[in-house]
Formats: sequence, structure tokens, C-alpha cells
Amino acid sequence: MLNGSSFGRRLVITTFGESHGPGLGVVLDGLPPGLAVDLGAVQAELDRRRPGQSAVTTARREPDRVEVLSGLVDGRTGGTPLALLVRNQDADGAAYQDLADVFRPGHADYPYAAKYGLREARGGGRSSGRETVARVAAGAVARQLLAAWGVTIRAWVSRVGAVAGTRVDPAFIEQNPVRAADPGAAAAMEAAILEARAAGDSVGGQVEIAAEGVPAGLGEPVFGKLDAALAGALMSIGGVKAVEIGDGCALAGLRGSEANDALDEGGFRSNHAGGILGGISTGQPLRVRITVKPTASIALPQATVDVEGRPRTIAVAGRHDPCLCPRIVPVAEAMVALALLDAWLLQRSQRPEGWPAPPPWTGRGPEER
Amino acid sequence: MLNGSSFGRRLVITTFGESHGPGLGVVLDGLPPGLAVDLGAVQAELDRRRPGQSAVTTARREPDRVEVLSGLVDGRTGGTPLALLVRNQDADGAAYQDLADVFRPGHADYPYAAKYGLREARGGGRSSGRETVARVAAGAVARQLLAAWGVTIRAWVSRVGAVAGTRVDPAFIEQNPVRAADPGAAAAMEAAILEARAAGDSVGGQVEIAAEGVPAGLGEPVFGKLDAALAGALMSIGGVKAVEIGDGCALAGLRGSEANDALDEGGFRSNHAGGILGGISTGQPLRVRITVKPTASIALPQATVDVEGRPRTIAVAGRHDPCLCPRIVPVAEAMVALALLDAWLLQRSQRPEGWPAPPPWTGRGPEER
Amino acid sequence: MLNGSSFGRRLVITTFGESHGPGLGVVLDGLPPGLAVDLGAVQAELDRRRPGQSAVTTARREPDRVEVLSGLVDGRTGGTPLALLVRNQDADGAAYQDLADVFRPGHADYPYAAKYGLREARGGGRSSGRETVARVAAGAVARQLLAAWGVTIRAWVSRVGAVAGTRVDPAFIEQNPVRAADPGAAAAMEAAILEARAAGDSVGGQVEIAAEGVPAGLGEPVFGKLDAALAGALMSIGGVKAVEIGDGCALAGLRGSEANDALDEGGFRSNHAGGILGGISTGQPLRVRITVKPTASIALPQATVDVEGRPRTIAVAGRHDPCLCPRIVPVAEAMVALALLDAWLLQRSQRPEGWPAPPPWTGRGPEER
Amino acid sequence: MLNGSSFGRRLVITTFGESHGPGLGVVLDGLPPGLAVDLGAVQAELDRRRPGQSAVTTARREPDRVEVLSGLVDGRTGGTPLALLVRNQDADGAAYQDLADVFRPGHADYPYAAKYGLREARGGGRSSGRETVARVAAGAVARQLLAAWGVTIRAWVSRVGAVAGTRVDPAFIEQNPVRAADPGAAAAMEAAILEARAAGDSVGGQVEIAAEGVPAGLGEPVFGKLDAALAGALMSIGGVKAVEIGDGCALAGLRGSEANDALDEGGFRSNHAGGILGGISTGQPLRVRITVKPTASIALPQATVDVEGRPRTIAVAGRHDPCLCPRIVPVAEAMVALALLDAWLLQRSQRPEGWPAPPPWTGRGPEER
Repeated sequence: MLNGSSFGRRLVITTFGESHGPGLGVVLDGLPPGLAVDLGAVQAELDRRRPGQSAVTTARREPDRVEVLSGLVDGRTGGTPLALLVRNQDADGAAYQDLADVFRPGHADYPYAAKYGLREARGGGRSSGRETVARVAAGAVARQLLAAWGVTIRAWVSRVGAVAGTRVDPAFIEQNPVRAADPGAAAAMEAAILEARAAGDSVGGQVEIAAEGVPAGLGEPVFGKLDAALAGALMSIGGVKAVEIGDGCALAGLRGSEANDALDEGGFRSNHAGGILGGISTGQPLRVRITVKPTASIALPQATVDVEGRPRTIAVAGRHDPCLCPRIVPVAEAMVALALLDAWLLQRSQRPEGWPAPPPWTGRGPEER
Repeated sequence: MLNGSSFGRRLVITTFGESHGPGLGVVLDGLPPGLAVDLGAVQAELDRRRPGQSAVTTARREPDRVEVLSGLVDGRTGGTPLALLVRNQDADGAAYQDLADVFRPGHADYPYAAKYGLREARGGGRSSGRETVARVAAGAVARQLLAAWGVTIRAWVSRVGAVAGTRVDPAFIEQNPVRAADPGAAAAMEAAILEARAAGDSVGGQVEIAAEGVPAGLGEPVFGKLDAALAGALMSIGGVKAVEIGDGCALAGLRGSEANDALDEGGFRSNHAGGILGGISTGQPLRVRITVKPTASIALPQATVDVEGRPRTIAVAGRHDPCLCPRIVPVAEAMVALALLDAWLLQRSQRPEGWPAPPPWTGRGPEER
Repeated sequence: MLNGSSFGRRLVITTFGESHGPGLGVVLDGLPPGLAVDLGAVQAELDRRRPGQSAVTTARREPDRVEVLSGLVDGRTGGTPLALLVRNQDADGAAYQDLADVFRPGHADYPYAAKYGLREARGGGRSSGRETVARVAAGAVARQLLAAWGVTIRAWVSRVGAVAGTRVDPAFIEQNPVRAADPGAAAAMEAAILEARAAGDSVGGQVEIAAEGVPAGLGEPVFGKLDAALAGALMSIGGVKAVEIGDGCALAGLRGSEANDALDEGGFRSNHAGGILGGISTGQPLRVRITVKPTASIALPQATVDVEGRPRTIAVAGRHDPCLCPRIVPVAEAMVALALLDAWLLQRSQRPEGWPAPPPWTGRGPEER
Repeated sequence: MLNGSSFGRRLVITTFGESHGPGLGVVLDGLPPGLAVDLGAVQAELDRRRPGQSAVTTARREPDRVEVLSGLVDGRTGGTPLALLVRNQDADGAAYQDLADVFRPGHADYPYAAKYGLREARGGGRSSGRETVARVAAGAVARQLLAAWGVTIRAWVSRVGAVAGTRVDPAFIEQNPVRAADPGAAAAMEAAILEARAAGDSVGGQVEIAAEGVPAGLGEPVFGKLDAALAGALMSIGGVKAVEIGDGCALAGLRGSEANDALDEGGFRSNHAGGILGGISTGQPLRVRITVKPTASIALPQATVDVEGRPRTIAVAGRHDPCLCPRIVPVAEAMVALALLDAWLLQRSQRPEGWPAPPPWTGRGPEER
């Protein structure tokens, strides 16, 4: 939060690494001690994010094995920094040689050059989607602790191009290559992706994230609101261009009498707010949606310029996902996990004894009724 | 950024105050020295945000006079903290006596009680929209420095309920009570607001923000991306439920060949990205849109519970805006100004000599062509 | 901690104000909710720091009345920022007119001018010792919470010029104008101060601070060690030029067999370490000593230059303490209180359930035996 | 600065690793781009800190080879995080098996157990002096940039036990195993160390650090003063128990007329202040001194307890330096380099154009006259 490669306030993660350098890593500082880290589960999350899983993702093959550099005492967190490293293995810089002096449309090439005066052309360097390896590794640890505290986080692809899902079948998500939650829409989504690829093109989409079991009271007024933290966390993922909380953009068209969530003895009667009011969690499930732009790298010819401003036409070969959404699913879950755990640790520090006591009434969402 | 009431990394603002307490204030630390602060311009921004300006806003009357508590040397910033205070004068706590033990739907009442175990019932305390006084005062100073460096920031209401504007006439914005930019839609927007109020209800909407003159290279990879900073800054405004960058949600339906902004000798040919690629500014105009939920306080009867969980039906009297959008316009401008100036100061610290030199080609947006 | 005028990580205070401006203030963010703030006790601490208390302090007369601008709900902290303001009243800028273009030896005049290009010449502006008003007000709140948790903090003057105290009689400290803890040395210390004043000169000294009841386990490895936090906190007080923990400088002359504190069933047998090992509190009393340089403002003529580098001889009239130590006592206590409470809140956030359990043996200092 | 394992505000370093884990590492975020990093010079600094260099240091043999994990583009900093890793090779955990349930006197064993509920007994884990590998690697990069900007940093051992040096011969420092600067005292210092070792004991000492070429204006009022930053940075090194700026503790015995540094056309006439006034650098050489306690690990029998509180007598075998000072020299230089570069980058961010102009007179120290 202080500098660009750190995130969080009490649980601070710092990431490093480039697409075609030695590897990607993350340091987690502030983790409570005594957590038995399930490295298999961390690896499983990395495997979910890994390239080359199906026909709808890039062909780059990375084993993405996680190595622990520090922080464990007999398999448990010791309270000191947990450092994780994933080596790059299938980096193929050759594909980028022709692009070294060209600004790829839709990529960070030009702004990085303007910012730093020099840039790592191979694979986008630090701006590559490959940096999310470090996010997923860190998030995999955070969600283990959250799980122990009763929180589950789940994301799925709710839209690809013009195809939108409507149902949410949690068990179905990991059973289809698109990571759609709607069995009735998954095939059409997959077709939309393959169609775009066949055309040398790419396609955008949306991902929804839900978190259940989040206690009421997380988030810091005024600037540290939970929705502000989530928005920053999710918008920081490459390709994300919009973040909506609860009903999001649809709230523009509603009246207050429609949008307010009424309360009764049993809890909240609805959850238009997405589990956050005034920036503080209500105890209802969190609901967040992100919009992901179409992959910038496409095989179709595109007009651009080189560093001298001379016109060039390029077709980006390389190995790219025709739709970013399926692989952003575990990344989005990771960022939500990190933001939630950070908010929770902050809240615990300010309510050391849980005193004064919260009100007797406890809001619960309609989902639990 | 560290704690909830601070924002920024190099230009850090810290705000304080409640709706019905002594006043609202802000401390700005990190401002460059030597800036002749135009206090009249700060007051003018506060006046834009001020309640009681027209029939579409609340009837609360606050002069909102700004007082300087520290930081000026002969009218110029001295490099040390600039502290500004605005006293509350028309606070009417009596209206809230009946609500002291009730959770108002759509408000932060319940989550604040759950978070802190106690809360300021009068006017929502710290969760009141009145806290934005401090944001606007701080932003008014930031934009003076940005203006000196060639950056202008402008926001307007682009939608109210079902009424969307399409044109942007900058000169028109401050000439209509809705702060619409489309002369052809302003009357319908105003009617929608008055209609909601007449029905004892409220209505949502959208606000767009544009910033011109932003240099390329602002924003910090990975978590400190400019769009992540903007998303967090804007989502932290009470009532905001979605943030979109550039084409935002619409990008979900596009293909890469449609969404990528091509480059040629003259600059970028389009600006779907909204002036940000890979989280770093491109030099094109920034384009951001926020969705604002309908005002939570409505006169219509609503079902809720008191702190013991007993059912209650309430009608929120008080004095409230039937649509938050017109008054959020200056608040959104302020947050964008603060986020931009902060990013700029950070960038300058890392490029102390402007070396190594950026590429010869300089992207410029289609707006400048 | 982020910017110069903020201190702390979880309990963050932000101060503002200059010697001859409207006033001094502080915003405390992160205080636990529900603390009934004793404003009389805050005022009492300000009175201890206040000028004009005796013959050994400056003649400036400031009532230093504290005003609460935000953060209390029915007299209790609400969890949101507590803002405190103290107005300046006896500011006499006229005394500084002759000094506006001169760099006073021993003062921050030249480095401020070099840093900012302009400076507030009246009373040193932000570099004045008067900024400590804000520290004392904040510390007074922090120590109320610490007291409720069993921690007491006490400081005293242990040396003035060549006169060193050896005994510590806590009850005596506030009964003599020097705030010496040794009844046998107080008169000689007072004489040393008055003698320096009579000579138009000033004199240095030392202050010791002790904190009892601090639990074991506070402080964050590696850079956030408790002694590092205390050193930064205390060195940030104007005039402080050295910080020693436990036996401090004397440890240079010892062997390990002399310096190590042995342990037995009853606890630590000694406390050479000053209650901190490896940067983490041991549960023993904290012992810290600071060295305070002689007041820079003296009536004797001094050689200096003006802003153009022209030689000048000045005698600093104004109203100044001939020895800073007596009035630094409450400031040092305040900084230790703020550093301890911050460390404690951090620790609680990382050990949310107090699990895993600490070892059965609990070290206690020889003072408790 | 946020969490315990990070240091800095604009140049933020985050370290990780334990004495007997896989290795030690550091991530530097905020480095200006374009710096050609001399990895040989980084290795040379690590070699200076390395164990096993002479008879006065521990016998542990670590090659301490630095590996770059990220951040370089063709050998230059790219503006993104530079990550460095040093693998542990000669870790001998067996020596610690007998100590797993005992609290070693003078070590962090007990407070770590109290803090985290569990601890890494092998070699002290994170509390080991071996964590300074990461500091030295980071500092070696920082000082390359500082050197390019004209700043040199040098430290030396000024005292061992009762033997104090008085002269400073820079060329001599690296030519004697003690790193004394006084050729007339080095032999006696070495004898004091060997004598302590022969007695199964250890000995304390002092290290002085000087930095030349530091521009005036670095440091942030009020809490971010340069001396506060240096005090925190140096006190965070294990074993350091006191930090003095300029004349330090000796100032307690002086009068203002003796302690103030007079100014004339040629600059400051003396440097009692150690190059810092009001917390801001004056342009004179920085002078700082630290006191280092005797090594806690000694072969002599010591009384202590195990985790259950049962009395134990232990003699710490292992491989330890009988005096920490010689090897703290490069560590102290590293911390001063990191603190200075961080302050410099902060200052540049707030004075983006160097406007308003500083005063015509430029203070220079007597050393330059």
C-alpha cells in the first residue's frame, strides 16, 4: 500500500518478479503465528491459475511449483515473514524480440516507457499477467486462515462477451473450462471464447465473487472502507476495468424504496448492498463483480508505432488466453481473501477485548434464512 | 491509507469530524512549499458541495466557512501540514432522537454498532455524507497545484434513474441544478429527482469524471496502479457502488480488436482504456464513471428493527437530498485531484532527474487531435 | 510514520500547527472505542508541559486549553478520529522581526530554508518546541488507556549539566521545579539552571523514562523493534541528541557475563537490557534515557549569517527555557505512551485469539521481587 | 515501516529469512530506474559482513552469494522491485538441539515465545544477527546511488570494552580485523576481544558512522526527522543499545554557548550537532555513534530457566563473535545509506521543481574548510 508492490495494512504482502525473469515471489508480513500452512492447498491454487489447463487458455507450460524461503516453524507460521517463490521455467523471450521497440496496443508498453524511461520488453516484464502468481500464492495462505475462521470465498465467470450466466451452481464451477457457474450457459461461453480465438481475436467478460461467513464490522471509515479496499484490490488486477458492489451499476436506475435492504427479526430481507453499508460489512454475504477487458494480445494485425513514432503493423504471436476471465477467477478470490483478512486483523486490533459489546440483534442475510 | 481516515502516500490527507459534532477538518501533509493558496477558490468548492443550493438538495443550511489552522507562511504553503476546519452550525440533532435505537435501512447504523459497540446516532456521525466537506476542502487545494501544472478535472451527472445524458457541454454543467452536462437531458433528470422526492422516495444515478492534461507515467505497479488508486478513492465516497474506467462494463461485450486503442504518429486513435494502460496513465484524458445508489433516507415507511431486534416501521424525516449525484460531483472531482497529485509526487520522487529519458513518441488522445 | 507529521502504525496520530499560528492540533486515528476520555487529565498533562510554571521555564504565558473537535460519543471514544485543538494566545511575533533574515545558531532556521525555500521565521514555526503541545495531548489520551490496562509511565530529570541524580523518589518528581527524582540533587540542578540563565546562557541534561506493567511480547521484528520505535519516537523530540535503552552506553564497557540478565524461577535477576531483548518487551520495566542539548536560544552574543551570507552577531531575546529538561518530561512520557499503545494494538491484531499459548514461565523483573 | 520487516517510506525494503532456514532475502521497492547495479560491489559488502573473516569473528562459514530474483533490465534497475536472495549453507542446527526448550540469557528467546507462542529455536530464527545479510545487500544498492549523487558513508569501531580510539584514519579501517580507525588503538582493541574470548566471555563496544556529501534539507518534521529515522534504523540492529547524534550524550554537560555551532561566510564553524538541526540535515557531515552490547552467547555457565520455569545452567556453544562491533560496521553503513536515500527521495517528491529557491548562503562544515 505504501509502495506499488505492497498490499495491505496489517497483513502486508510484497510481491516481486517479471514474466521472463528468474521467478515470481511474495513476502507476507503480519500473519498470525501458529497456522499450519497446507502447502498442497497453496499449490492447488497455483494450479488453478496455471496456464495450459485447457483449450481456452494459453499454451505456455509452467509447473509453477511453490518454494518456501522463510517463515515456517515445523510447518506452522512463526509470526515472521513468510516468503514464497515460484521459478519461471517456460519463459520464451524470443517471441518478444520483434516487439522490443514497438508499443503493443492495449498493453502497458508505452506508459511503462514513459514512466521509467526503460522497460522489460520480454513478456511485459512486471506488467505481465504472470505477476498474479504471487497474488494467488499469498491469497492461498490467507484463505486457509479465513476458512479456519468460517469464511469461504468463491468466484466464477458470469459473462463472456454477449453470453451471460444467470444461475449459480457452486459445484459446477471447477467442472467446466470457463469456470462458469451456470451449467446452462457454460457451453455458449466456451464457444464464444473459441470463436474469438479462431478469428485471431479475444473477448471480454465478467467475474463475480461471493464471500460467506464474513462477520459484521469489517472495514475502516472513511477512506479505508471495505468496499474501497476491495475496489482497489480488484482493480489492481491487470485487465479489470470496472468493480461493482452488490447490485452495482443497476442501482443507478432504482429508487431508495427498492434499493434499501429492510430488516426484521430474522435479519436483512435482501442484499442489494452486497453485504456492505457505509463501507462496513453487515454480516451478509459479500457480492462483488468485476469487468475484464478482452485480452490485449491478438493475432489480428493492429496499427501502432515504434518508440520513435514510426507506424508499424503488428500481430502479437506469443501464447495468450483468448479470454482472461477463467484464469482471473482464482486471482480475484485471492485478492478478496487478502483484503478481508487484512480488514479483520485491523478490526481485532482496535477491539482488543470485544468491548463495548455489539447490539443484541445480529443481521443475517436472506441466504441463511 | 494507513488508517481509515487517511488517504494518499506522499500527499497524505487525514480527515476528522462528524455530522453533528463541532465540525469537520482535514490535515494535508506533503504539499510542496511555495504554493499561494487561493482560499476563495477553496471556499467556492465548498459552496458547490454545500447543502441548500436548490430544490433538488437538502434544506440543511450550512455556511461551511473554511478556517486555516496551520500551514501557511504569508499565504503560501510552507511545506508543513496545512490544516483546514469547517464548523458545523445548522446541526439539528433533535430529528434523530427517535432513531437513536433503530437501524435505518441502507445506512451504516447497524454495521457501525457491530463494529464499535457504540455509535453516534445523530446524523450518522462519521458515516454521514457531511464528512465529504473535508474531502472537498483538501481537493480544492490539490487541484490548484494540478491546475498550475496543466491538469483540469471536471465531473458531471450523466444519469439519474432512467434518464441518461449523451452529450457533454462543459459550460452547461454548473448552469443547471442537476449538474448535468447534456442540456437535452437536464430537465428530465431534474424532473426525475423532484418526482422521487414528491413520492417520499429517492433515486440513483451516475457521475462521470474527466481529467485532462495528465502526463503519461503516473501510477505504481502492481497494487498501486492509478486505476486501483482511483477506484479506492471513489468507492470510498458514501453511496458509490461501482467504479468504471474508460468504457468500463461495456468492455465485457467487446473483442480485443474493438477494445484496443491503436496508435499512430499523431497519438492514440481512440480512448476505450480511459487514459490508463497496465495501471499507468497514457497521457490521454482520464475517463471514470461512478454509480451512486439512491439516497438511503426516504420518507416512505420502511421495515426495520431496533437494537434489540424488535420490529419497527420508520419514516426518515430529517433533511436529505432525494438524489446524491449533484452534490457528489465536487466530491468526486476532489478525490480524483487528490489521487492524481499523490501519484504525481510519487512519480517525481522516483524519477529525480527525469533520467533515463522517455521515448521520443508521445501519445496524445484523440481529443487533442 | 508515512509523512513527517504522523506517528504510529495502528494508532496513528497526525499533528499540525506552528508556534505563532492559530494553534496546535492532533488527530488520533485507531483508538479503541468505548474509552471514557478524562479531559481533565488531558488538560492536566498540558498544564505540566505549559510554559510559565516556574523560574526555570520561559515566561511565555499560554493557557493551553484543549478543545475537542471530533471523536467522542457521550464522552467516550467512538472508534473514529479524535481531534484535539489548542489555540495559541500569547504568541508574540514582534520579538522575531529582527530575526526574519538571520539563521539562529543551534536552530532549524537554515535547514528549513534549505529544505523548503521559505520558512516561518516567527518562533521557528513548525520547528518550535511548541509543537509538543500536540504530542502531550495525544499522549495523555493514550496513557489513559494504558493505565486501564495496567501500565504506568513516569519520567524525571536525572541530570542537569554536571549535576547527576542517583536516587529515584517518584513522589518527589512533581514537587520540585526541575522535575528531579533525587531529592538530594534537585537543589543543585535548579542552581545550575538559574546560574546558566543568569549568565545569559543555557544548559543541557538528561531525562529518564520508566514504564511498568508492560506485557512481554510487544515490538515487531526486524525494523519495528520496540526499542527502534522508542528511539525514533524520542529522538523526534526537538533537542534530543541521544537515546539509550537499559544500561545504554555503559554496555560498551561490559562483558557478556556482566551484561546478560540471568533468569530463575522468580523471573529475571537483573535488568541491564531495560526490559527489551531482541527488540521485544520482556515484561520487565522499560528503562530509557535521553540526552537533551542545551537550549539553542541564548542571550549571549553569537556569530551567524543572514540569508545572503553576511556576518551578523545576534543575541536571542524572546522567552526561552534555560534548560529544556523539566518541560521535556511530560513530552517524553507522551511519546513512550504513544509508542507502547501502538505496539500493543499491533500485537493484539496478530494474536487474535492469544493462540498458540505463550510459555508457562513468565519473566518478571527484579523490581517486582 | 508499516510492518516489522519493512523499512523506509519511499524506498521501501522488505526482508525475510531466518538463521537456519533456506536463506535470507530482501525486496527493494521504489528505486529510481536506470541505475546500473554493480553486483560485484554488492557481493563485496556481503563479504565484509560475512562470518569467518578473522580470529575475532565466528567460525561459521557462509559464502553468502547474492542472487538476483527480479528487478533488473539489462543490468539496470527497471523501477520495479529488486529482489535479492542469499542462501544459507553452513547452518548447523544440531548445536541448538539442547537449547530448544531453554531461554538463553541476553537473547530474544523468551520474548519471542511470549510474543508468538512458538519460536524457531535453531540459531534464533528471525532474531539472529544473520538477518543483517538482507540489510547489507539492500544497503549496498542504496549506497551505489548515493555515491553517484556524491554521498559517501563510512563506519568504524571507535571503542572495544575499555579501549577507545581517538584518531580517524579512513584508510586504516579495512586493514585491521577490528575495523578500528585509530592505528594506535587497534591492537589493544583486538587484544581485548581475544582476551574476552579466551575467558569464554564477550565484550561490548561502540561504532561511529560518518556520511559526507549529504545535502541540506533532508528529513521530515515532526516525527520523520532525519535523526529520528537514523535512530530507529540503527537501534533496529540487534545488539545496539544507544544512538547518539553529533556530540550525543556529552551535550548534557555543555552550555548553549559551547554547544551551538556558529555560522560565518565560510559555513558552520563547528559540528557539535552532527549535521542535523531541528531534524533536518544542514549539509555538514553526519556524525552518529552507536553502542553495541557484549555478545549474548558466551561459553561461561549462566543461570536460566526452561520453558516450564525449571532452573538450568547453560554454556552456549555454537559459533559466535566475541565482539559484535567489527561485523556491525557494514550493517550500520547499510542502514544509514537506506535512511538517507529514503529521505532524499521523499525530499525530491516534495520539491518537484526545486522551487522556491533556497537561500544564497550554503552552510558547509568545518571539515571542508
